[in-house]
Amino acid sequence: MKKIYLDHAATTPVDARVLAAMKPFFSSKYGNASSLHSFGTEAAKAIDDARQIIADSLRAEASEIIFTSGGTEANNLALKGAAYANRSKGKHIITTRIEHHCVIEACRWLERQGFEVSYLPVDKYGFVSRQKLERAIRDDTILASIMYANNEIGTTEPVSELAEICKSRGIYFHTDAVQAYGKIPLEMKNIDMLSLSAHKLYGPKGIGALFVRNVKPEPLLHGGGQERGFRSGTENVAGIVGFGAAASIAMREMKKDARQQSMLRDRLIKGCLKIENSFLNGHPKQRLPNNANVWFRFIEGESLVLMLDDKGIAASTGSACSSKSLEPSHVLLAIGLRHEEAHGSLRFSLGRQNTRQEIDYTIKAIPEAVERLREMSPFKKRYG
Amino acid sequence: MKKIYLDHAATTPVDARVLAAMKPFFSSKYGNASSLHSFGTEAAKAIDDARQIIADSLRAEASEIIFTSGGTEANNLALKGAAYANRSKGKHIITTRIEHHCVIEACRWLERQGFEVSYLPVDKYGFVSRQKLERAIRDDTILASIMYANNEIGTTEPVSELAEICKSRGIYFHTDAVQAYGKIPLEMKNIDMLSLSAHKLYGPKGIGALFVRNVKPEPLLHGGGQERGFRSGTENVAGIVGFGAAASIAMREMKKDARQQSMLRDRLIKGCLKIENSFLNGHPKQRLPNNANVWFRFIEGESLVLMLDDKGIAASTGSACSSKSLEPSHVLLAIGLRHEEAHGSLRFSLGRQNTRQEIDYTIKAIPEAVERLREMSPFKKRYG
Repeated sequence: MKKIYLDHAATTPVDARVLAAMKPFFSSKYGNASSLHSFGTEAAKAIDDARQIIADSLRAEASEIIFTSGGTEANNLALKGAAYANRSKGKHIITTRIEHHCVIEACRWLERQGFEVSYLPVDKYGFVSRQKLERAIRDDTILASIMYANNEIGTTEPVSELAEICKSRGIYFHTDAVQAYGKIPLEMKNIDMLSLSAHKLYGPKGIGALFVRNVKPEPLLHGGGQERGFRSGTENVAGIVGFGAAASIAMREMKKDARQQSMLRDRLIKGCLKIENSFLNGHPKQRLPNNANVWFRFIEGESLVLMLDDKGIAASTGSACSSKSLEPSHVLLAIGLRHEEAHGSLRFSLGRQNTRQEIDYTIKAIPEAVERLREMSPFKKRYG
Repeated sequence: MKKIYLDHAATTPVDARVLAAMKPFFSSKYGNASSLHSFGTEAAKAIDDARQIIADSLRAEASEIIFTSGGTEANNLALKGAAYANRSKGKHIITTRIEHHCVIEACRWLERQGFEVSYLPVDKYGFVSRQKLERAIRDDTILASIMYANNEIGTTEPVSELAEICKSRGIYFHTDAVQAYGKIPLEMKNIDMLSLSAHKLYGPKGIGALFVRNVKPEPLLHGGGQERGFRSGTENVAGIVGFGAAASIAMREMKKDARQQSMLRDRLIKGCLKIENSFLNGHPKQRLPNNANVWFRFIEGESLVLMLDDKGIAASTGSACSSKSLEPSHVLLAIGLRHEEAHGSLRFSLGRQNTRQEIDYTIKAIPEAVERLREMSPFKKRYG
């Protein structure tokens, strides 16, 4: 039986068209983009083309795109790079309690280097409030980093308004758009930095980008001066070409994908919520078209993931990065769930290949699994 | 006509066997290695296998391998990571004048953060002297970084003896083995950190590794805690699998490759040196089996690269990273060449696919090109 993959927020398969675009850059067009000979200029041209595609997709200039090894590096470069470049202006940074681990951990590291970070709370849907952002701004605030859409609960933030506040107060605004890019249209106004990752978008793993405007982050990787000095290291030509191809397809098919996936997502959510004691995490409307996150009372999410895996369904408890940790999700705690409630939540993230048949099979499989787990649950005895 | 690629030190084509090993990890085995479901465990297993191959090739433990986005990141992690992790012990670092840009620029950055760096000179062959290393060691020295083999002139350093000196003085020893790995056997004794890159080895670009023993470098990229916390970011599964496959092939074929390439290299050097006023850079014997670096008096290396490119031969003036810079090579200056002499040098780096016919064609093409350029040379009038 073909497995049903419902974990596209963790990673996606590489689209066949993307792989086809990449292939020549492994075998025949293998030059180092910095080389002077024709192998090199061919590689450099391919990178230029991909950079232009990514730039166009953001209505940006090619010179505003820095390729990185992925979303984690893009977020680290944005946070640490902008903080170090602007440390003479101030040492205060604002972010939120629901950011991806790589933003939060980069902030924790900056705190150890003498920066101060405010972590804004969110409401029960995961929304960051404008008022709280405004109140958090200090004279020495240099940067705010607020994600475009949450990777666990799918909530999309009012980024335009938050960015406008920062702009009016002279603070750089960064947004982690790793989950949002290619799924919803991005409003770029007042955004100074924006992080992207190819492998959430049917591109390869190991490649991402940081859009930069107005700000010059200090590099994390020093060396040969590639990426206009912002990110040294031999360019991952095949990866960059694949990213470009994936972005190009995503921009063309975004509307169609979003329509299809949000329909299936709503069907899946409806199916899940028919189960007694189950609740949707995140906002019902202001969310990514492919994200469903449901809390099933009395169960342990990891067990449900494994049981569904046995039934041929791949889902997750939240961020893949922390799936092996015993800690409950910081995002679910931030929206007000208790520890045991956070542990009982499941994320389904849909993709281009999912069919209605797959969703219907999943809707049948979940209640069986939930029921079996609840029968074994220590929580049920305690709370039921 | 098939082009003759003699720039394998810049990058190599991906071996067809490597690409075949990678392919499933783009299309069917596309899981995120951190995911709990079977897509995830399948990816994690593939990474484990590749990690074991790399570890075995260094007679190391799998737990001593940290995958990075390439050699530049590995070198940055080694230098900055070990420096930051040990800054309470001391702030002095020793390296050499002939390191790759990414080591030198990481050191320059560390100097801006308050560290002190000694850059050891080398002799006319590019050898680092034991005495000079010993004399450079101070009470507050924490780390020495000396490359295994030079990327421009091919000279291989007495790494074992240098590492032993550091060991006896309680200093961590790092070596950039990006050019040496897979080409010559590596002596691992007393080495605490060693950097690798896949794309110099018929593997893909965008993946590398740092071997670490005894030392725990502070991470450069914070986030989900992948690579045992030393390097966060979704693992580049296909890249890692490709690296493993490339390493496995390289270990099996190293002897045969080295024998064939050193024979062709010597033929090429002999052919070049028949040209009047041409000289070999680097040591005639203690050099990488695939490296030839020749200085042609009165010519400008970039012009020669372009002229050879027209004849279907891809060579370089030195490091690809700096090929677009107007500065003369810091390596060639360090071995005692004057500016105009450094500008007149050419690097040929051979690979697995090069044939005797290709080398013979090249030996014929070079004198014609050199002669034509010398006719136009302003240097010739000045010095000739």
